[in-house]
Amino acid sequence: MYELGIVKRHITRADRVAVDQLAGFGVATVHEAMGRVGLMKPTMRPIYAGAHVAGPAVTVLLHPGDNWMMHVVAEQIARGDVVVAAVTADCTDGFFGDLLATSFRARGAGGLVIDAGVRDVKDLTAMGFPVWSKAISAKGTIKATIGSVNIPVVCAGALVNPGDVVVADDDGVVIVPAALAAKTAAAAAAREANEAEKRAKLAAGVLGLDMYKMREPLEKAGLRYVD
Amino acid sequence: MYELGIVKRHITRADRVAVDQLAGFGVATVHEAMGRVGLMKPTMRPIYAGAHVAGPAVTVLLHPGDNWMMHVVAEQIARGDVVVAAVTADCTDGFFGDLLATSFRARGAGGLVIDAGVRDVKDLTAMGFPVWSKAISAKGTIKATIGSVNIPVVCAGALVNPGDVVVADDDGVVIVPAALAAKTAAAAAAREANEAEKRAKLAAGVLGLDMYKMREPLEKAGLRYVD
Amino acid sequence: MYELGIVKRHITRADRVAVDQLAGFGVATVHEAMGRVGLMKPTMRPIYAGAHVAGPAVTVLLHPGDNWMMHVVAEQIARGDVVVAAVTADCTDGFFGDLLATSFRARGAGGLVIDAGVRDVKDLTAMGFPVWSKAISAKGTIKATIGSVNIPVVCAGALVNPGDVVVADDDGVVIVPAALAAKTAAAAAAREANEAEKRAKLAAGVLGLDMYKMREPLEKAGLRYVD
Amino acid sequence: MYELGIVKRHITRADRVAVDQLAGFGVATVHEAMGRVGLMKPTMRPIYAGAHVAGPAVTVLLHPGDNWMMHVVAEQIARGDVVVAAVTADCTDGFFGDLLATSFRARGAGGLVIDAGVRDVKDLTAMGFPVWSKAISAKGTIKATIGSVNIPVVCAGALVNPGDVVVADDDGVVIVPAALAAKTAAAAAAREANEAEKRAKLAAGVLGLDMYKMREPLEKAGLRYVD
Amino acid sequence: MYELGIVKRHITRADRVAVDQLAGFGVATVHEAMGRVGLMKPTMRPIYAGAHVAGPAVTVLLHPGDNWMMHVVAEQIARGDVVVAAVTADCTDGFFGDLLATSFRARGAGGLVIDAGVRDVKDLTAMGFPVWSKAISAKGTIKATIGSVNIPVVCAGALVNPGDVVVADDDGVVIVPAALAAKTAAAAAAREANEAEKRAKLAAGVLGLDMYKMREPLEKAGLRYVD
Amino acid sequence: MYELGIVKRHITRADRVAVDQLAGFGVATVHEAMGRVGLMKPTMRPIYAGAHVAGPAVTVLLHPGDNWMMHVVAEQIARGDVVVAAVTADCTDGFFGDLLATSFRARGAGGLVIDAGVRDVKDLTAMGFPVWSKAISAKGTIKATIGSVNIPVVCAGALVNPGDVVVADDDGVVIVPAALAAKTAAAAAAREANEAEKRAKLAAGVLGLDMYKMREPLEKAGLRYVD
Repeated sequence: MYELGIVKRHITRADRVAVDQLAGFGVATVHEAMGRVGLMKPTMRPIYAGAHVAGPAVTVLLHPGDNWMMHVVAEQIARGDVVVAAVTADCTDGFFGDLLATSFRARGAGGLVIDAGVRDVKDLTAMGFPVWSKAISAKGTIKATIGSVNIPVVCAGALVNPGDVVVADDDGVVIVPAALAAKTAAAAAAREANEAEKRAKLAAGVLGLDMYKMREPLEKAGLRYVD
Repeated sequence: MYELGIVKRHITRADRVAVDQLAGFGVATVHEAMGRVGLMKPTMRPIYAGAHVAGPAVTVLLHPGDNWMMHVVAEQIARGDVVVAAVTADCTDGFFGDLLATSFRARGAGGLVIDAGVRDVKDLTAMGFPVWSKAISAKGTIKATIGSVNIPVVCAGALVNPGDVVVADDDGVVIVPAALAAKTAAAAAAREANEAEKRAKLAAGVLGLDMYKMREPLEKAGLRYVD
Repeated sequence: MYELGIVKRHITRADRVAVDQLAGFGVATVHEAMGRVGLMKPTMRPIYAGAHVAGPAVTVLLHPGDNWMMHVVAEQIARGDVVVAAVTADCTDGFFGDLLATSFRARGAGGLVIDAGVRDVKDLTAMGFPVWSKAISAKGTIKATIGSVNIPVVCAGALVNPGDVVVADDDGVVIVPAALAAKTAAAAAAREANEAEKRAKLAAGVLGLDMYKMREPLEKAGLRYVD
Repeated sequence: MYELGIVKRHITRADRVAVDQLAGFGVATVHEAMGRVGLMKPTMRPIYAGAHVAGPAVTVLLHPGDNWMMHVVAEQIARGDVVVAAVTADCTDGFFGDLLATSFRARGAGGLVIDAGVRDVKDLTAMGFPVWSKAISAKGTIKATIGSVNIPVVCAGALVNPGDVVVADDDGVVIVPAALAAKTAAAAAAREANEAEKRAKLAAGVLGLDMYKMREPLEKAGLRYVD
Repeated sequence: MYELGIVKRHITRADRVAVDQLAGFGVATVHEAMGRVGLMKPTMRPIYAGAHVAGPAVTVLLHPGDNWMMHVVAEQIARGDVVVAAVTADCTDGFFGDLLATSFRARGAGGLVIDAGVRDVKDLTAMGFPVWSKAISAKGTIKATIGSVNIPVVCAGALVNPGDVVVADDDGVVIVPAALAAKTAAAAAAREANEAEKRAKLAAGVLGLDMYKMREPLEKAGLRYVD
Repeated sequence: MYELGIVKRHITRADRVAVDQLAGFGVATVHEAMGRVGLMKPTMRPIYAGAHVAGPAVTVLLHPGDNWMMHVVAEQIARGDVVVAAVTADCTDGFFGDLLATSFRARGAGGLVIDAGVRDVKDLTAMGFPVWSKAISAKGTIKATIGSVNIPVVCAGALVNPGDVVVADDDGVVIVPAALAAKTAAAAAAREANEAEKRAKLAAGVLGLDMYKMREPLEKAGLRYVD
């Protein structure tokens, strides 16, 4: 599936306006707005609570235990990009730490999503550099085998094309294809528009059963109340 | 084991006085007071540190990827209840978020224990609505299949009858059968009564070996000291 | 592999000066300084963020569900020691809580590393007693079977001899053999010496590709840039 | 939940005729006939392929690493019973081997379902003694702590009351409450009755789309065909 | 990433000659011939030993606990195709059993690769219908939500486009992009060509160290022999 | 803990007579004879049923995704040795296949125990070359980084010194220190001596409760029988 040894320099990033709009929504809302698809696995967790980022993906394909390509991808980062790192086999090693974070930040990266481990998490937290990973591990890596940059990758179960929008928060990570960014932002906005009203009703004690008119379909489905 | 399509409206909740007494103890103490049984699996974790709740269980049985019954159970919540949600097969989807939490809180719920995933954890944390779950996931659910409310359920390895007492804190979740609530509260109180004294002795440097008179049984068991 | 029923009273602790030097470095740095070995598995996590400890290991071998030997090891703790607890089979029970922590602290322990579960984590956090474990669980243990103290143990995949140096922080746990403590501390210091300079360069936008002179070896390895 | 230290000698076993009828169906059919409930987790696997058993449950509650109660439950086995063993915390130790299997077989046991590990699997296979377990492990156990026999237990996520029917095959394990055994057997028979006809149609190339008349509901649900 | 509610009827299958050539190689060889990429995760296991299949992929995207689309994909199977089933979230339910296998076989399917569970494995084995799955589970599914057929899917970590070649054996599953099928078959053939000679040398006692001329590079890398 | 870049050529193998005696016992018996220690984790499984081997360990330390040292260890194999391969971090890649097995067999190896993955399992099974591993994976490895041969390693939780006795069967893998080999063989023999008699009694219907005289201690422990 993957072509190895390639660095694609010019990618088409999702529309900036749409990215900025998507940045205003949580991952759950964005994922619902796409029809409940596009999520990475829930094994991907932020290294500190409260992190929230949205930006175009620059992608990198790594080999287990080898972070050489992390230096290659650094050069391809434009301001606001989110690096998405996939690995060719399961690995929890610490591919990324405070030095790479310093470099990524200097390039303008908004954050990192990596289907592996990271280290120096105390420093990363102090820097406010957001990372979503499946592990925290001090295990170091070598620089021996080349992968690729800005090819399509599978990261934590999600297909990510370079330029797609990455949205990540405490609930996880979702990928919005670049071509769907504007449409998804609009759908997310529509979804949120009436949430305030719903929330107020629910807070006032109205039941979802009544607000969503569920009583009849539930009865039809066979639900019965007993004492 | 499970009867599907049932909502039991009237349940016998554990004695309020006993519930309030149990609320004063940690999960570890309560579980010891019952003879070291009744715990849910340690995969059940609070979504934020420091949460602590005790209350009668209202139970709900869900199907994987389907949170329809969460709206049904909302109506059955009395002030102080803790909702216990089981699923008929392993699932990490996000069955519960800020809208449902708003509704549950309006009904007086003390918290939620769910053997699945939840989302909007930043909002839930801000609300101070405590949840114990096995996953955090933005993955949304559908409303297609009915389960049951207030039937006995197995949640994270523990049998929970409606009305049983749920005690949950940073160490996990324990279930106290309603009939044993008062007895367990008394046993927990007895257990804690002499802990202050023990703690003071240990802090002063007295060894457990001496305080608990373990040297002789250890020697009998064959322990020997070498240089 | 293990001799059971033994308590070794006199162990040779790593050189105090070297231990104090190692305490100044993070786990990732120490592990790199040893040639990328000596780490415990990344399943070992601190119970609260920001914990950092270094000290000689006193070791204890436990049986699943049985914490009797935790009281035996308490007596062997010297000021600054870190207790390393291994179990003869996988177990997530809560072997350690606030009473034992009070005792360990009174003996001068710097912390605990245990390949199992712990409980009373709110109290341990309040005490500032650092623990690295693979689980948090309220499940209590019994006192029925003897193990050993201060024998070599395998803990979370790492061999630990009594007196070895344990270094633990947010990134995990690393073991430095006592005989290598001084040499490792020196290597770690050398490693960190030029990190400040590197960090400044990277922060100024210099790429790792250039700073580490990677462009030529990457090209030799076959990397090619496309548009 | 559990009362410890109890051996219930007289239990009400499910109707023998219904048990024998259920023995004629696979686990998948039985579970569907109950409304898709009652299954143990898919972590429960047979130690050899082709095993198939149905019989009333005699239950035993064990502590981790302690198989003392396996000898107690042996005495309560009647011809054709299936022993269901639960443990109070996660454990993969080998609680059962060829000696116990010899004893169980002499008592007439049809098999064992255990939410833990077993050993001597080559011998058990040679004996044709069927076991469903979550692990195979040579790890031995002690005899120090009492549990209970013939109390309701939670085993691999399923509630099992003594006397309930256990059906187990290559697909897993399902529990049929004694009171539902006859009704479930009838529902399973009805379910299988028209399967032969369906199978013949499908084998002849008729599509499920047509046989189940799914084309219209799929179209209503929004499915569209493109080239 | 995924468009839902689509069935693509016309797909471009990999060249038949190349597929037949690839069928002559094992998964390990094919994956090496592509540069060590394209494998699904090792959690994907055959339901019986000795299964081996190669064929063009027809893909289906399912929702957790819902196998409705399995009937839709059946119609799109051409002789020799291998169905690749992905799910939008982790799920181990049994989506596939003997009735669907009968239908798939009647359509000419060579096998099934599914990132979920299957059931009726005794029947599937008797039929000789090969399946690679991550679980075996009797848990049934519903038919409520539509997915898609013949869109690109991510299955067990691998991107699969309809028409790509699936090769599966006891070692796992690899995906060869249709456009690379002929080239990969050639590379695999070249790889195997000299294996017979190598095998003979190794069988005669020649060491890989000498046959591959590794002694010098190992020495350069710092390896030293001690007594 | 580990010294890298070392190949120790001369090791002291356990006494041949003791090894041959140990070969006559199962893993469970040997592990009991050592006091229930020395087992590898139950994640280590044979690639085919019925495999059974005993022999002195030659050890190899690998890096994740790198099998270079497997060729180095091949040269150190003496007839009857069992290779024990550890990895410096978790990895499921396929480090070993039919070519290496051909080489190992030509050197006289009795088998392989590896805390990682292997491939070509159909060939290995046909050859009758026994392997215990934690995974089966077609994923290939590189040859870039040196490890060590015949140093002490931690493999699947067990400490293995070169020359120790490895015993492996369907129940798992146990390590007997060379110095304890004769003593352990004697203890295993003593253990088995009276098993035939016990088995006969149990087969005749005598209960373990009576044969082991457990009724009194159980009653003392508080067990009570109810109707």
